[in-house]
Amino acid sequence: MSDDPLIERRVARQELLKGHFLHAFRDTVTLPDASTATREFVVHPGAVMVIPLLETPDGQCKVVLERQYRYPVEQVMIEFPAGKLDAGEDPLHCAVRELREETGYTAREWARAGVLHPVIAYSTEVIHIYFARGLTLGERDLDEGEFLEVFAATPSELLGWCREGQVTDAKTLTGALWLQNTLSGAWPLDWQALS
Amino acid sequence: MSDDPLIERRVARQELLKGHFLHAFRDTVTLPDASTATREFVVHPGAVMVIPLLETPDGQCKVVLERQYRYPVEQVMIEFPAGKLDAGEDPLHCAVRELREETGYTAREWARAGVLHPVIAYSTEVIHIYFARGLTLGERDLDEGEFLEVFAATPSELLGWCREGQVTDAKTLTGALWLQNTLSGAWPLDWQALS
Repeated sequence: MSDDPLIERRVARQELLKGHFLHAFRDTVTLPDASTATREFVVHPGAVMVIPLLETPDGQCKVVLERQYRYPVEQVMIEFPAGKLDAGEDPLHCAVRELREETGYTAREWARAGVLHPVIAYSTEVIHIYFARGLTLGERDLDEGEFLEVFAATPSELLGWCREGQVTDAKTLTGALWLQNTLSGAWPLDWQALS
Repeated sequence: MSDDPLIERRVARQELLKGHFLHAFRDTVTLPDASTATREFVVHPGAVMVIPLLETPDGQCKVVLERQYRYPVEQVMIEFPAGKLDAGEDPLHCAVRELREETGYTAREWARAGVLHPVIAYSTEVIHIYFARGLTLGERDLDEGEFLEVFAATPSELLGWCREGQVTDAKTLTGALWLQNTLSGAWPLDWQALS
């Protein structure tokens, strides 16, 4: 299928907002029928999410999760560890950093799963998805003003929460899709030792 | 687990942007340690996504999907049909409307799956997830300036695209999680005939 009949092309750009966090633009675009329209969206630096696989002493596999209050949705959310890329930062470097800062864990092996776009209608954000295993617990190093709780759950607990509505964060639901298919063997990963 | 140690409370609100589409605020909040911080976010009316199950003449199950150019991410995306709630609109009503407008299909039966929050760090948006079956094809009725292609794929084609990176839209990846577990029988649905 060709993309050409669908593509929109920028003809002008206006900065709408430069906040502390939100950076928004309004672009004027030409549509496939040559008419024009405006598109308003947020420019985002990109982010990573980590699916940390924890082997418990009795040989069970658990995943490391967080509970964090998310102000826009006014709820404590259950999430995989995640965080924004620093300017120019390599996604894997960011994944290693965020996992350590937020949970205290460092991982012996990493696997890149893919990417997700959380909100294609109005943000440029892309989230790089990684698995981590061979975890060793150290010290957390939260950002100032960051409050979150770390806990572990079995994959079947997590999938139950996805079904029942206790997990509604889209990146974490996407992580659950990856987890389910990785553990079943349907989506094998390419694990790499971190040198 | 108690939510109290994590909750942030609003102490002030500033409107940052009232665009054609984006409506953004900066709230001042008190953090769990009684310090203050600001939270910038977009207020969104909410949306729906539909997972339409199509029985082909040979008895195969397919899902109805769309290809649409998404300007912020500069890509043609494969997505389940979706759309924003009108003011005060019931989510199921919106799901029925958006499915018909975007794809031309009407459905005999509907099932509510759950909700997802696409971007909990900086938007209030919630997406209500529905399944639809017993499809009849009629006329599409696209909004002005809306260009999208409708096609059908098997669940295994869709899951392959999720794994391989041709599907990266978070709502559609979440839909794939629901689809996989519904078709396997793990997450049964409560189907209702539309009266």
